[in-house]
Amino acid sequence: MIIDCHGHISAPVELWAYKGTLLAHRGSHGRGGVRVSDEQLIAAAHKAEIGPAGHLELLDRHGTDLQLISPRPFQMMHSERPGKLVHWFTEEVNTLISRQCKLLPARFVPVCGLPQAAGEPIERVFPELERCVRQLGFKGCLLDPDPYEASGTEAPGLGERYWYPLYEKLCELDVPAHIHSTGSRSERTPYTLHFINEESIAVYHLVNSTVLDDFPNLKILVSHGGGAIPYQLGRFESASLRTGRRFSTRLKRLYFDTVLYTPGALRLLIETVGPERCLFGSECPGVGAAVNPDTGETMDHTAPYIESFEWLTAAEKKLILEENARKLFKLPA
Amino acid sequence: MIIDCHGHISAPVELWAYKGTLLAHRGSHGRGGVRVSDEQLIAAAHKAEIGPAGHLELLDRHGTDLQLISPRPFQMMHSERPGKLVHWFTEEVNTLISRQCKLLPARFVPVCGLPQAAGEPIERVFPELERCVRQLGFKGCLLDPDPYEASGTEAPGLGERYWYPLYEKLCELDVPAHIHSTGSRSERTPYTLHFINEESIAVYHLVNSTVLDDFPNLKILVSHGGGAIPYQLGRFESASLRTGRRFSTRLKRLYFDTVLYTPGALRLLIETVGPERCLFGSECPGVGAAVNPDTGETMDHTAPYIESFEWLTAAEKKLILEENARKLFKLPA
Amino acid sequence: MIIDCHGHISAPVELWAYKGTLLAHRGSHGRGGVRVSDEQLIAAAHKAEIGPAGHLELLDRHGTDLQLISPRPFQMMHSERPGKLVHWFTEEVNTLISRQCKLLPARFVPVCGLPQAAGEPIERVFPELERCVRQLGFKGCLLDPDPYEASGTEAPGLGERYWYPLYEKLCELDVPAHIHSTGSRSERTPYTLHFINEESIAVYHLVNSTVLDDFPNLKILVSHGGGAIPYQLGRFESASLRTGRRFSTRLKRLYFDTVLYTPGALRLLIETVGPERCLFGSECPGVGAAVNPDTGETMDHTAPYIESFEWLTAAEKKLILEENARKLFKLPA
Amino acid sequence: MIIDCHGHISAPVELWAYKGTLLAHRGSHGRGGVRVSDEQLIAAAHKAEIGPAGHLELLDRHGTDLQLISPRPFQMMHSERPGKLVHWFTEEVNTLISRQCKLLPARFVPVCGLPQAAGEPIERVFPELERCVRQLGFKGCLLDPDPYEASGTEAPGLGERYWYPLYEKLCELDVPAHIHSTGSRSERTPYTLHFINEESIAVYHLVNSTVLDDFPNLKILVSHGGGAIPYQLGRFESASLRTGRRFSTRLKRLYFDTVLYTPGALRLLIETVGPERCLFGSECPGVGAAVNPDTGETMDHTAPYIESFEWLTAAEKKLILEENARKLFKLPA
Amino acid sequence: MIIDCHGHISAPVELWAYKGTLLAHRGSHGRGGVRVSDEQLIAAAHKAEIGPAGHLELLDRHGTDLQLISPRPFQMMHSERPGKLVHWFTEEVNTLISRQCKLLPARFVPVCGLPQAAGEPIERVFPELERCVRQLGFKGCLLDPDPYEASGTEAPGLGERYWYPLYEKLCELDVPAHIHSTGSRSERTPYTLHFINEESIAVYHLVNSTVLDDFPNLKILVSHGGGAIPYQLGRFESASLRTGRRFSTRLKRLYFDTVLYTPGALRLLIETVGPERCLFGSECPGVGAAVNPDTGETMDHTAPYIESFEWLTAAEKKLILEENARKLFKLPA
Amino acid sequence: MIIDCHGHISAPVELWAYKGTLLAHRGSHGRGGVRVSDEQLIAAAHKAEIGPAGHLELLDRHGTDLQLISPRPFQMMHSERPGKLVHWFTEEVNTLISRQCKLLPARFVPVCGLPQAAGEPIERVFPELERCVRQLGFKGCLLDPDPYEASGTEAPGLGERYWYPLYEKLCELDVPAHIHSTGSRSERTPYTLHFINEESIAVYHLVNSTVLDDFPNLKILVSHGGGAIPYQLGRFESASLRTGRRFSTRLKRLYFDTVLYTPGALRLLIETVGPERCLFGSECPGVGAAVNPDTGETMDHTAPYIESFEWLTAAEKKLILEENARKLFKLPA
Repeated sequence: MIIDCHGHISAPVELWAYKGTLLAHRGSHGRGGVRVSDEQLIAAAHKAEIGPAGHLELLDRHGTDLQLISPRPFQMMHSERPGKLVHWFTEEVNTLISRQCKLLPARFVPVCGLPQAAGEPIERVFPELERCVRQLGFKGCLLDPDPYEASGTEAPGLGERYWYPLYEKLCELDVPAHIHSTGSRSERTPYTLHFINEESIAVYHLVNSTVLDDFPNLKILVSHGGGAIPYQLGRFESASLRTGRRFSTRLKRLYFDTVLYTPGALRLLIETVGPERCLFGSECPGVGAAVNPDTGETMDHTAPYIESFEWLTAAEKKLILEENARKLFKLPA
Repeated sequence: MIIDCHGHISAPVELWAYKGTLLAHRGSHGRGGVRVSDEQLIAAAHKAEIGPAGHLELLDRHGTDLQLISPRPFQMMHSERPGKLVHWFTEEVNTLISRQCKLLPARFVPVCGLPQAAGEPIERVFPELERCVRQLGFKGCLLDPDPYEASGTEAPGLGERYWYPLYEKLCELDVPAHIHSTGSRSERTPYTLHFINEESIAVYHLVNSTVLDDFPNLKILVSHGGGAIPYQLGRFESASLRTGRRFSTRLKRLYFDTVLYTPGALRLLIETVGPERCLFGSECPGVGAAVNPDTGETMDHTAPYIESFEWLTAAEKKLILEENARKLFKLPA
Repeated sequence: MIIDCHGHISAPVELWAYKGTLLAHRGSHGRGGVRVSDEQLIAAAHKAEIGPAGHLELLDRHGTDLQLISPRPFQMMHSERPGKLVHWFTEEVNTLISRQCKLLPARFVPVCGLPQAAGEPIERVFPELERCVRQLGFKGCLLDPDPYEASGTEAPGLGERYWYPLYEKLCELDVPAHIHSTGSRSERTPYTLHFINEESIAVYHLVNSTVLDDFPNLKILVSHGGGAIPYQLGRFESASLRTGRRFSTRLKRLYFDTVLYTPGALRLLIETVGPERCLFGSECPGVGAAVNPDTGETMDHTAPYIESFEWLTAAEKKLILEENARKLFKLPA
Repeated sequence: MIIDCHGHISAPVELWAYKGTLLAHRGSHGRGGVRVSDEQLIAAAHKAEIGPAGHLELLDRHGTDLQLISPRPFQMMHSERPGKLVHWFTEEVNTLISRQCKLLPARFVPVCGLPQAAGEPIERVFPELERCVRQLGFKGCLLDPDPYEASGTEAPGLGERYWYPLYEKLCELDVPAHIHSTGSRSERTPYTLHFINEESIAVYHLVNSTVLDDFPNLKILVSHGGGAIPYQLGRFESASLRTGRRFSTRLKRLYFDTVLYTPGALRLLIETVGPERCLFGSECPGVGAAVNPDTGETMDHTAPYIESFEWLTAAEKKLILEENARKLFKLPA
Repeated sequence: MIIDCHGHISAPVELWAYKGTLLAHRGSHGRGGVRVSDEQLIAAAHKAEIGPAGHLELLDRHGTDLQLISPRPFQMMHSERPGKLVHWFTEEVNTLISRQCKLLPARFVPVCGLPQAAGEPIERVFPELERCVRQLGFKGCLLDPDPYEASGTEAPGLGERYWYPLYEKLCELDVPAHIHSTGSRSERTPYTLHFINEESIAVYHLVNSTVLDDFPNLKILVSHGGGAIPYQLGRFESASLRTGRRFSTRLKRLYFDTVLYTPGALRLLIETVGPERCLFGSECPGVGAAVNPDTGETMDHTAPYIESFEWLTAAEKKLILEENARKLFKLPA
Repeated sequence: MIIDCHGHISAPVELWAYKGTLLAHRGSHGRGGVRVSDEQLIAAAHKAEIGPAGHLELLDRHGTDLQLISPRPFQMMHSERPGKLVHWFTEEVNTLISRQCKLLPARFVPVCGLPQAAGEPIERVFPELERCVRQLGFKGCLLDPDPYEASGTEAPGLGERYWYPLYEKLCELDVPAHIHSTGSRSERTPYTLHFINEESIAVYHLVNSTVLDDFPNLKILVSHGGGAIPYQLGRFESASLRTGRRFSTRLKRLYFDTVLYTPGALRLLIETVGPERCLFGSECPGVGAAVNPDTGETMDHTAPYIESFEWLTAAEKKLILEENARKLFKLPA
């Protein structure tokens, strides 16, 4: 069985039109909402939009049994003002995710977005986080380390006290946070690069701060194989040797998804953090949904790479492909 | 026959979703485009969305024979960055307008939006303006006096040299500009108020500057009955008496649409600027598309008010309801 | 009897020189003060400066028996720094108003300015408001919705909590607030336009917020016939039909002065809000004090228009011209 | 005979009221002007305002025969916007100075202000400078090294190329520039301190740059005895010893007025720069016009100090009190 | 033979003191200079400062025959003002590098820094680049893609026209540019992370723009194994499949140094870009100079990893360890 | 015996290199420290660097017995970020001063710097001030009135409440504060001018505020003879005559050092504030350490001037040269 821990909702076009209109009236029309039927939600899961086939069809092709789906990050506009737009939009998206997962419970498990409106105290996300987890049965949340979306103001590093109330809440709810930034307002660093850079920054601060000591039960999953960190491990490891707190050891307190699209990178990740810290993820359909002319497959069809690694035991592969996700997100067997 | 000079496209939801996605990737995915069929374009013109019936059905109810349609202003996001998003989106909207007008030539006449990306020289809009007018047969354009969309930077007043190249181009193409601002980033002045305030500012600068002297053939149509100006005429007239250039006389160089939803306001407008300067407009369906419980009609059903004014001659009513628009926009008989 | 609810002090030139000097030393000379004699104050009320005759002479010509006078708004410089300049200057102006009214009690009734230094908590105006009302017998105050004077920072809308302490204080003192903005630092929106735009914004927020519900005894008088609102009523009414709180009904909780200089505008105002909500005002002498060559009268001589309206009863005219002001400002009979 | 090279106009109060009103309408009323009669101009020169007696009376008391008068600097508002206010106001002040000097030619000689609107190219002051010198017979001008008036933006130092066109123009017209800053927007550095600090900065840059080399005929007079420079000479001299361009030598290319109000300071100045570089100045009436209770005289009555210096020859005293001014400003004998 | 393409000068402490003092006087003392003797320069190359032994001793231990040395990037302060400090300091550093290389010609080859003062046109670096290459025999230069040093302003991406004059100059001089950012003013992204993120951004823009097409002879070497790119290759490759310009193919137009400190990362790099595109680099002594307790070696002792890779041929190893550097930098055999 | 109250540490070059490196890593390397031996500290006091001979040699030449030494102000970088750099660096400097004084107790007495990181509450300097005074025996501290270092933000004037906690602490510890600003980021006002201007501003605020009344025991020593104040005394005295609080009287509550390098300036200072308020200071070696070719002596050799003043009694000279310092700093006899 394969569980993909990193997917995003394939939503009806009305959701994005709702966003476009919110940004037009900036709240003066009131909240409104996305009015779509269950049929539209199911149809969206079957529509070929990003990749060469529909979302569910791609999962079928890849042998993915279950996928955790969350809001599509680059659309989440955390830096827009006024902040209520961020709240409204995030709530609508989460509601659609919940509905789609309930319509397709055998395939999708919900992970919520947090309405992290740039500049607001982190406590402002609690009501929506609690609604999602306690009322709607979400299994985790995305955590955006940069709600300013590369717009010139820097968010506090993840080691800062700013985030502590959220860490407490996550421990209280016993759900993991999946690190994933949202859009980027910088032309120099478009969102796809911003994701990677933010993940490196996030890991750096989590490992080098006292967060992991202060919250021993905090569960953090880092997207896209941890940005640059496993590849650049040596430089951080070396610096840490002078401090007595080895970077490579502390790094293993975090979890990483395998959203990397080459076997070499997958190998490096698993070797670096260990199979017990890796969760299979493909972000399918997403950036990796283009067909590789060399293989005829989309690039996000990566489970076969893992399955083919001779240097992993069957038990280790199972950890990566299923069991780590099941345990981290407390999915029923 | 009734010609409504002020309408906006009822577009398929894919258009607004396109906008939402442009704002997510900020151009890093490339331009892309809106892919909708002719059927979708026709369906959008029949869909009840803003008002109690579809766009064409409302026009039928109101006895409107022909409507000039342009981009829906509050959606036009002129202040977004990078500026290429503004160009791409405006071009897509104009293309859809052209297609919808060609599909429904008996009902719709196209008026284009200008890709006025905030901060760019005004000459940057020329290629799109020329494409629309010369290649696609558009009959006029919207002119946004505030591409910054109330975001804190002030645009040059319409009397400033900044705008002169555009005025020259409009004279060269012999098409009118319809003054209409777009969104507002201010919570204090939401877009609906911003429209009105900007129209007052626009009229003030056009009348008090030398634009109308420097461009005797320039054709300017002001939205929403001229903002506050006809109502507040006395204060501007009084100030002008000290200068020898009477405001009320110069005001009549401009044209005004009748997008006002009460008979008293319509009366004041027509009395103030004269029937030869008024063009019937309803912006239907738009803000006025709510049903007035006192009448059972939508508020934008205003032609009957004009028709009932005893103090207007039949010829004057015809000017307002048809002939002024025909002449200003050079519509074939 | 005619009571003009909207007049501004005709002050000795020393007052404006005092202002000029305050802005030169920015407070480093200390407060100083305006030293003028009673004779100078009386002479100022007779000096032809803004209009073709002295202030009192114009009132005589117009048959105005009593006028409420307040600081001349465009001179009030609420956005200057340091804030103490605003306090000092406002206090000096109020003191001169008080003195002039005491010298001419049969003609003038005092309305005070508030020292609303931009960026200060609203409570900072209380001492001066209390001095004026409790000690000096002022009957009301001006309220500036934009102490930033169009300088780029937006003031809170009048529906925001920022203003609540003032609303409470006004209720406690039982005096009305007359909405009137002060200067404008924007060349694009000079003060005369800024007044109008700010009045539209003020009415919008007062009607659409809960202020009028939270302060049922609050008395608000809006200058210049309410900016653009009566003329543009339809668009706000239509939007309100979707919410169940009709704009036109709530609008009648406010009072409006008739500082409009054309009969058509006066008619529209009175028809729209009703004679029981209109207070005669001329702002004489002010912007309307230019002589209309068509009539030989200054434009602010508007009482005859009201008196000539056949569609008003004598009792309604008396409400507008006298009784509403008497009641709102609690003037002795 | 005593010539006081540093005096400022005692103007009718209407001038400052004009300023106050300009700052209220920010140009939207047009330029307007100061309307005062010759009688008012003469009366202003006799009115006791700043000091214990009128301007001319104080000059009489002090034995001053002739005074060069210029705009009162702290009132000149060079940092106000829009820049046209600065031009209008400066021109009005210069015109009043010219008129007052023509009315009192035996007592006053005109020195003009420059309309240095902050942020404008320096060439923008040329028309007014030429009007004053060529048409009206002004003998010199003030030069404000900080038109930003301590508002946070730094003006170019006087050694920068920004100022070169002005230096050329001054050489062409063969008139001296009298260094004198205007207001200060800083509460921390009120204008009276700002004057001093700016003079130190001005001297520093003039001496240490190549201006004096590039313009051998440029005539610069520094106000208030040169700020802090003569007192702090040692530190600048010492630094210059490392460069081969001795500060104390180059300093003597400049002229200094004696607007210092203690004999010790006067002594230090004259000893430091030499009697051939000092011009008697009192700025009477100005900051020094307060009566010293120890002497019963105003503090700006300083010629007696100079006259009493035993270490100066009579010829040297005459240089300071009369001849240097006569030569620098090319006054007729 | 082993050539290390990525080393930085071990300078006498006087160099850093010179920097500290420049930043204290900000140029007002003039340029000054670093006065050190040849003995001091040689001693510095032997002093154990960053690592457990002196610079040359570490090279000996690692078997490195020759190292290209350049300024120590995190010290280069490109964002300091005024810009002349950047020029002076860079020139001093380059001069010391030249001297040290001439003193130790068998071990060191000079690579210069560019005085990229933030905000200046790129042409401003040409005189120093030409001095170094043409007069002093430098073999290449560092190129800082972010002279703003993460201070909030974004530099143009390396695909922008801003950089074209430099690319032309590099082609003209036929020297490679080694991409390496300098300091970081961000606490959230300290310089060590900033290096990595900037390298990812640099590669992204170089590969996705037309720079490599427009300058077919341009030689670019990317530091630290290319940031995150080889590890994250899949996501960029996938996005490129939609454009027809394959990322992985174009990527091989660039060169990469092997400054990575784990064998897995080295393997991934070499596999990804090919041995003909990799240049051995250790940045020794630098961040990797800490002793790994597991091995007893410093982490930057990485040549043995490469030598041990069975999947590389001897010829390929030689390319990486020596010949690629020799060819790219045109080192004599 | 001569006590020089104003000297700065001659430190080993490693201190400035430490600073340069802190500014390179901005804290990401951790605090580190300056590692110098006692020998290096002693050698630094003998090294000819700023002047023509070593620090101690110059003191010997000048007959200075004892000097109070503090951090070298222009190096103190109070405006750098993050603020912890300011704390670390100041603490390191103070520690070196303490060590050097303990090594040379017959010559040096320690005065500490305060870690006034720009923007921090003043209370943040208390731990270091207490460490220095209570644990290490420092006798006073420098007080920087502008920790923003002329970077565009204005510090509160010394009369503001911001500083009151420090004044309380100084009274509690019974140590004097020596006013001395640090660097300047302005090219227009380089640090040497900034010192002087800041001293004028400091004196102005201390004298004109209520600080001296509120803290009757506060001991303030002003550097460089008080900036411009003694020279410009008349203008401040005159202004004060209008307030009843005579400037010249209140001025004598402060102490002044004699760091002026010309006999005329020294004379003016002593005459103005009185010998009981002057403390001999030379800042040797510092800006005055250049050799005057007229005398062959360095300019900072100024004690002979004082000794030669016939108008001072021997007792007065002793006050200036020794006893005032001994009393103010509570030095043991």
